[in-house]
Amino acid sequence: MYRAPVDEISHALKHVAGLNKAIEDGRFEDLSEDLVDAILTEAGRFASDEIAPLDEGGDTNGARLENGAVTTAPGWQKLYKDWTEGGWNALTGPSEFGGQDLPIMMSVAAFEMWNSGSLGFAIGPTLTVGAVEAIEKHADAALKAIYLEKMVSGEWTGTMNLTEPQAGSDLGALKTRAEPVGDGSYRIFGQKIFITYGEHDLTDNIVHLVLARLPDAPAGTRGISLFLVPKFLVNDDGSLGARNDLQCVGLEHKLGIHASPTCTMVYGDGSFGDTPGAIGWLVGEENKGLACMFTMMNNARLHVGIQGVSAAEAAYQKALEYARERTQGRAPGHKGEGMSPIIEHPDVQRMLLTMKALTGAARAICYACAHAIDMSHASEGEAAGTWSERAGILTPIAKAFSTDIGVEVASLGVQCHGGMGFIEETGAARYFRDSRIAPIYEGTNGIQAIDLVTRKLPLSDGGAVAALIAEYRDDAEAVRASNRDGLEGVAERLDAALDNLEATTGWLTEALQEGRKAEALAGATPYLRLFGLVAGGAYLARGAIVGGDGDDAAAATRAALARFAATNLLPETASLRATVTGGSDTVAAAASAVFG
Amino acid sequence: MYRAPVDEISHALKHVAGLNKAIEDGRFEDLSEDLVDAILTEAGRFASDEIAPLDEGGDTNGARLENGAVTTAPGWQKLYKDWTEGGWNALTGPSEFGGQDLPIMMSVAAFEMWNSGSLGFAIGPTLTVGAVEAIEKHADAALKAIYLEKMVSGEWTGTMNLTEPQAGSDLGALKTRAEPVGDGSYRIFGQKIFITYGEHDLTDNIVHLVLARLPDAPAGTRGISLFLVPKFLVNDDGSLGARNDLQCVGLEHKLGIHASPTCTMVYGDGSFGDTPGAIGWLVGEENKGLACMFTMMNNARLHVGIQGVSAAEAAYQKALEYARERTQGRAPGHKGEGMSPIIEHPDVQRMLLTMKALTGAARAICYACAHAIDMSHASEGEAAGTWSERAGILTPIAKAFSTDIGVEVASLGVQCHGGMGFIEETGAARYFRDSRIAPIYEGTNGIQAIDLVTRKLPLSDGGAVAALIAEYRDDAEAVRASNRDGLEGVAERLDAALDNLEATTGWLTEALQEGRKAEALAGATPYLRLFGLVAGGAYLARGAIVGGDGDDAAAATRAALARFAATNLLPETASLRATVTGGSDTVAAAASAVFG
Repeated sequence: MYRAPVDEISHALKHVAGLNKAIEDGRFEDLSEDLVDAILTEAGRFASDEIAPLDEGGDTNGARLENGAVTTAPGWQKLYKDWTEGGWNALTGPSEFGGQDLPIMMSVAAFEMWNSGSLGFAIGPTLTVGAVEAIEKHADAALKAIYLEKMVSGEWTGTMNLTEPQAGSDLGALKTRAEPVGDGSYRIFGQKIFITYGEHDLTDNIVHLVLARLPDAPAGTRGISLFLVPKFLVNDDGSLGARNDLQCVGLEHKLGIHASPTCTMVYGDGSFGDTPGAIGWLVGEENKGLACMFTMMNNARLHVGIQGVSAAEAAYQKALEYARERTQGRAPGHKGEGMSPIIEHPDVQRMLLTMKALTGAARAICYACAHAIDMSHASEGEAAGTWSERAGILTPIAKAFSTDIGVEVASLGVQCHGGMGFIEETGAARYFRDSRIAPIYEGTNGIQAIDLVTRKLPLSDGGAVAALIAEYRDDAEAVRASNRDGLEGVAERLDAALDNLEATTGWLTEALQEGRKAEALAGATPYLRLFGLVAGGAYLARGAIVGGDGDDAAAATRAALARFAATNLLPETASLRATVTGGSDTVAAAASAVFG
Repeated sequence: MYRAPVDEISHALKHVAGLNKAIEDGRFEDLSEDLVDAILTEAGRFASDEIAPLDEGGDTNGARLENGAVTTAPGWQKLYKDWTEGGWNALTGPSEFGGQDLPIMMSVAAFEMWNSGSLGFAIGPTLTVGAVEAIEKHADAALKAIYLEKMVSGEWTGTMNLTEPQAGSDLGALKTRAEPVGDGSYRIFGQKIFITYGEHDLTDNIVHLVLARLPDAPAGTRGISLFLVPKFLVNDDGSLGARNDLQCVGLEHKLGIHASPTCTMVYGDGSFGDTPGAIGWLVGEENKGLACMFTMMNNARLHVGIQGVSAAEAAYQKALEYARERTQGRAPGHKGEGMSPIIEHPDVQRMLLTMKALTGAARAICYACAHAIDMSHASEGEAAGTWSERAGILTPIAKAFSTDIGVEVASLGVQCHGGMGFIEETGAARYFRDSRIAPIYEGTNGIQAIDLVTRKLPLSDGGAVAALIAEYRDDAEAVRASNRDGLEGVAERLDAALDNLEATTGWLTEALQEGRKAEALAGATPYLRLFGLVAGGAYLARGAIVGGDGDDAAAATRAALARFAATNLLPETASLRATVTGGSDTVAAAASAVFG
């Protein structure tokens, strides 16, 4: 069973991602190292002891829809109640509405553990946190006064209604309509799909954020507005009023995260109330709905990225436990009678080390991204812009690299189990299934790669990426200067990987400047992987020489992982460079020949 | 819906793997090019029209166990009946017992299509074909006379009973007992797990091949014997007699291939008959059971390898169809109004091309392996030995590389579908789930890699691998000499990849010779991947310059894929070389630090 790796997370946050320095510099007011550890410990306990034990049942029972009502899996209602009573939903909410207003970093770290406990559970609160953020940033005071306190506490949950059948990655194609009533409210009509926790039995009310078009809206993405549409209207005294004209008409039958109801929502079909149309209120300005969504997009993408880390960590722990117990064959150098634990077999060691190194690399990327977001909020002027650009670069990498390795690590976890890995009761396959959604939602990983190449590379004329690469160069130099035993070859491998990143960045920048956009886009996905490997390798190297407080075993583990990553994972950067710079120009012609 | 790619398969068999030359040389008696095409066409038709339409229902309904009886999915009984009546089960069986005695190549090609239609269906006959082979090679005439004809026709199916809870990869640990009765028969006692189609309702009888230990057998793998144990005993006149003392006591709840009942079998618990003990007969010599299994191991592993190709091909076709129909966004260079089909987006093109190139590469490896097996049978003396070594090298690559890319391609297929990929009704997720078993069973892919490094590299003092590399060098040279448009850079990339293969082969050989076995084993998996990429790249290049018969579009597709593979996939060989030669020596120390 999953145990939250609090010490590893704490080290990565404080020493690798930069939390300690920010605390020392007084960036986060009351936050102290001790408070960080106390929160991580308790959040980890909740993940390990409360959430994780219910994950299997959540998967096998799933959520059920009957007569428009969704019943969550057995135990889910109590779990959610305990969750909100523990104050966990309020971790990052605004203090004005009862939140603890902690840095995003703390949210990401806690959600890592909660997602490891159960992706199907934690995705619900993830959406609420996002909805709170959008409402806080863009809604007027009246809406905030009605909704925010209950959403921060978790008494009500929030959802995001973006996708329609014809509008997924391309939101400009959405058709849901919003008609002004004249009293400041709107009537919403349309169908939305893939709405996570769009309907459930965990709370009395559900607050939907819905993208829709006003009657006179321009076509495309410039004509989209954001509306708040509650399941139940709220009376002036805060009590619940009439049922709004919206409902869940279907649940998706999915590959994984069965506990999370993925709803088809219909707005305004006349099922409730006298007048058809779900009543909603504008959030932000008319036709600026996408901009409202984008302000929370970085956080949302990062919170999906961490799901990859979560699945990877849980899959790793399960595989490690199995590999220690299962005996088969005799490993080289095995002494004594009988079979070896399979963890002694070099091939199994390679699998487990790959799992752990990729997990640690992705974790550090996510935390560094969270730190950049926090610092952009905690800084002013030029510094805020610099941190914001840093966050902009790291966000697509955190989202796509982490979720890709989530699937990869979960697949290795299945493999470590041999035949048992294919049996559902073992649980390894559940991570393989659950993890598979994360590369898809909140912007497919292909979309992330395109964002990185077309929007992030050009930031500050390439200066933002150059600054990040320079930081990683410093890591290589610091490893070299540390002269620490067990890190032989790490600085050199990291420098070589950075050479590959620089050269590939240059090639893509040139391709964009020369108008070879199709080539640049064809190189986007391998480039993002390359960037992620280098960043992860650099953070693992950094982690091997900083912090530690005398825990020699943990320090030795970090050094060993940094070296394993440098010698076994970073070589891939050379091939990715060659693929981008020597292969992207063949894609269009090949596609034309093969697909016609 | 899947359509069998008969033309591509035919080209790969005839022109890439060597079937045409063998036919010209008269190696396969009556087999002609036309007969090959006729068989492929009809086998493909059965796969596309009969099997594929039932795959979804097989997955959702699965097989059910009640009171020891297994009910297969709706339509499965008729499908199997049509299958046997079409003569498909007899494709490769010995002609003496009603089989068509065709080369293994034809079996592998046909099974590729049948597996694409439904892995859960075709795995059943795959096991029967293996059992037929074991019985034909090792059983005495009396057993053959009773069982083979009905197993060749498919009137009865066959199973393989190897695994026990404590004995998976390490068969030496198995405990099932066989006690001689004194009349030439034995009584079998024990439990076997993971028995594919161990019980079902498709046929009147099921013939189990069971590994067990005689009372006085030595410990370990040298004390294992093979027994034939039918579900129903057979009377002298061939009619079915008493129920034997064996039964299915459980079905596994699996990640995929739900239509295939994976049984826990109990032998000799006294449930049937007056005297406890399932009655069986020795196949081959006492204590030589593993050797009997090994004679069919190459074929069995190859037949699992092709399952990876099958899943990949089916996943590719589904993703391609979706990418042509689904519109989102505007691709670079998109003309006209509205959204582009996503197949016009470079990132989607990269995914689809990667899927198709990996599928074609793995297919060619499997067929080349099948050809080597066929030629080893069709040759004599030194030539037979040379072909046998070639088959020995290609078998672990065919098994592991193909099944790894099966999962990889199926995962890309999910990704191409965006959100729909995670919805089970779409079908893309089914290939992702089904494909995941193939890297595990019939010897995990880690076991295959160890086999390649420790048993196959040393063949003929390294000469067998060197000869294969030389053949691939000839391919690079032939591409260069062809001067064909559209193959720019292919020969150079292939040569560079071959350099990587040679250098890594040399490093591993030295490591083994110097007793650094743990390092060699730690490098085994990346080495196998490296070998597979090079072999696949060489076969794709070969395919681009041979055969074709004036079908220009098909020729252009093959050239484009060869170039895409050379420029976008073969670069990985450099990183794999660096990982093996510069990273394997860090694995043991890292494992010690991280796992204690």
